[in-house]
Amino acid sequence: MRGSLLVDNIGELVTNDGRGGDPLGVRRDAAVLVEDGQVAWVGPARYAPAADRRIDAGGAAVLPGFVDSHAHLVFAGDRAAEFAARMAGEPYTGGGIRTTVGATRAASDDDLRATVGRLRAEMLRQGTTTVEIKSGYGLSVADEARSLRIAAEFTEDTTFLGAHVVPAEYADRPDDYVGLVCGPMLAAAAPYARWIDVFCERGAFDVDHARAILACGQAVGLGVRVHANQLGPGPGVQLAVELGAASVDHCTHLSDADVDALTGSETVATLLPGAEFSTRSPYPDARRLLDAGATVALATDCNPGSSYTTSMPFCVALAVREMRMTPAEAVWAATAGGAAALRRTDVGRLIPGSRADLVVLDAPTHLHLAYRPGVPLIRQVLHNGVPR
Amino acid sequence: MRGSLLVDNIGELVTNDGRGGDPLGVRRDAAVLVEDGQVAWVGPARYAPAADRRIDAGGAAVLPGFVDSHAHLVFAGDRAAEFAARMAGEPYTGGGIRTTVGATRAASDDDLRATVGRLRAEMLRQGTTTVEIKSGYGLSVADEARSLRIAAEFTEDTTFLGAHVVPAEYADRPDDYVGLVCGPMLAAAAPYARWIDVFCERGAFDVDHARAILACGQAVGLGVRVHANQLGPGPGVQLAVELGAASVDHCTHLSDADVDALTGSETVATLLPGAEFSTRSPYPDARRLLDAGATVALATDCNPGSSYTTSMPFCVALAVREMRMTPAEAVWAATAGGAAALRRTDVGRLIPGSRADLVVLDAPTHLHLAYRPGVPLIRQVLHNGVPR
Ligand SMILES: [Zn+2]
Ligand SMILES: [Zn+2]
Repeated sequence: MRGSLLVDNIGELVTNDGRGGDPLGVRRDAAVLVEDGQVAWVGPARYAPAADRRIDAGGAAVLPGFVDSHAHLVFAGDRAAEFAARMAGEPYTGGGIRTTVGATRAASDDDLRATVGRLRAEMLRQGTTTVEIKSGYGLSVADEARSLRIAAEFTEDTTFLGAHVVPAEYADRPDDYVGLVCGPMLAAAAPYARWIDVFCERGAFDVDHARAILACGQAVGLGVRVHANQLGPGPGVQLAVELGAASVDHCTHLSDADVDALTGSETVATLLPGAEFSTRSPYPDARRLLDAGATVALATDCNPGSSYTTSMPFCVALAVREMRMTPAEAVWAATAGGAAALRRTDVGRLIPGSRADLVVLDAPTHLHLAYRPGVPLIRQVLHNGVPR
Repeated sequence: MRGSLLVDNIGELVTNDGRGGDPLGVRRDAAVLVEDGQVAWVGPARYAPAADRRIDAGGAAVLPGFVDSHAHLVFAGDRAAEFAARMAGEPYTGGGIRTTVGATRAASDDDLRATVGRLRAEMLRQGTTTVEIKSGYGLSVADEARSLRIAAEFTEDTTFLGAHVVPAEYADRPDDYVGLVCGPMLAAAAPYARWIDVFCERGAFDVDHARAILACGQAVGLGVRVHANQLGPGPGVQLAVELGAASVDHCTHLSDADVDALTGSETVATLLPGAEFSTRSPYPDARRLLDAGATVALATDCNPGSSYTTSMPFCVALAVREMRMTPAEAVWAATAGGAAALRRTDVGRLIPGSRADLVVLDAPTHLHLAYRPGVPLIRQVLHNGVPR
């Protein structure tokens, strides 16, 4: 959309500009000028430049669009019955991933594309303007490559997760599967991927396999992300820090050494409370990470097995209720934190030069995202400067 | 809207018809005919009568509209800062109600009406087609009467809750306040009220005061509801059963005798998990009540102090995650259960003669309300047969 757009009558503007003592960089009586899909100016409303069009925020809060840095959107089928059984008392083992692998392999490209498109649209309605999308339900050369090719139609932040789980046909020879992932699968996937990720967990990939796979990805220029320490303690967090990963995700079971490693590192700890909600598991200790000085992001982990939510506001509410983050910390983690976990500086903030991704809440302050749980509070979304 | 309307291509129809072994009365390949705001016919789609208009549910699940039997919508101001302080570790004592009383008394009728209207509209978008609305933030003769007069503009199920808390000006003479509630306040409120309710809890009204107030209400023809056993054990549940209350609400702390009293009584146990979520309190033991044979309803308790959600889908997800209700039990409790708690037979079900209040989900089955927490899954709402 051409021409300039002024968003004004903003009750509370969250900029995440990093200035002053307030991490959210909250401004009152502010306005935002958008031009060519970017934030062109932020300042007091009374000094706002003239613009071609105007959005009156009606005194509401305006935030950067959410950055969901961890989502598994390329899949087929659902696992509602497995969910209901688990809620009735059956423990989560992760074995259910193979159900989705079967359905995903059997699906057409158009079916997969339709699912990604539906979930991406659902996210956008809930204020998510940037999303990372992983493969990981193909687990063959062709199915991982097409998963990423389809994901790349929807986002720049595509992640090759061929090492999600060892597929059934390789169950008795996991070394061969690691060879496949590092060899032909990576070669086919890399043209469509920005990141590589491994599920480093008992029952998935051990630390040596994980290190080997991530090193192969780095060698072809992919950035590193790791799933680790979700189901129990393990070496995944320290591996992630050792490799300079952008993010290590889950972080539910951390030792003091894990927290020390994260603190001061370049690796973001991405917490996924939707997974703990939907698997009835204990939540990660966000307070401990924050108090130690680690950088924390929040993401949905949207997937059909363990966290089928697309809602960043829901994750913010859980973070406050269950992980003792303050509403400000949770909002930062869901915006600027997600951007840090994707090593992006163009999103997650509202400063001149940022991508014009913002949400107008149906609420006067960011506090309401936690104070009003479950309520759809996203009144309007601007994505690349375009109202959605 | 005149003329007949056929809802078809329904993947899963939840009727709550009470037939067979399935409490949800689920039908596949069903259709619903709506005439004059009522359900005129339910049956297999292939036998559906001709109709003037059609809604194609696209294979989605169709449910009765939610019945939210417990909501405090007549108030002014918000308490977001109190919420944030509580989440940072300050315990909930209930004292904050008086903050809202001050703001409510100071508000104009139009301000109060606008707030009720905004929240009622928010509920409708989330599939709530019947709502109970309480007074309880006026606590003077004039302010309780006007609260109920405004509430009655929005619902038939208005509840006089003059006995919400003893207002500050009566703090040293609670007996006088009980006299006011039973005398002039009840007289002024009763013309606009269907129900009377008391907050029977340590710090609010003791059992003798509660019994006296509820008896006065019954004497002028009001039905009885009770807030009880939220913050600790107490006699409120047994008082509710003794008086034949339609519902006793919260039920977080129950003795075996309380459960026995509820089981086989005419009194519904209404659980309000939004309050436990937003006060970080332990959840009620729904499993114990259900296994004992008590009737359980779910409601939001929407209020600015302890549960500022309007979302029945959120309550369903919490009920499954936190209170070990099955998705079917939770959906029943949020529809037919709410209707039972309001002693209504015209809502909460989809059978011939029911009010044509239904929701089309953005999902193939009711399971998704718990499986996809936080996601706005209400695609379409019919209220009194009219699409909203
Ligand atoms: Zn994941
Ligand atoms: Zn209440």
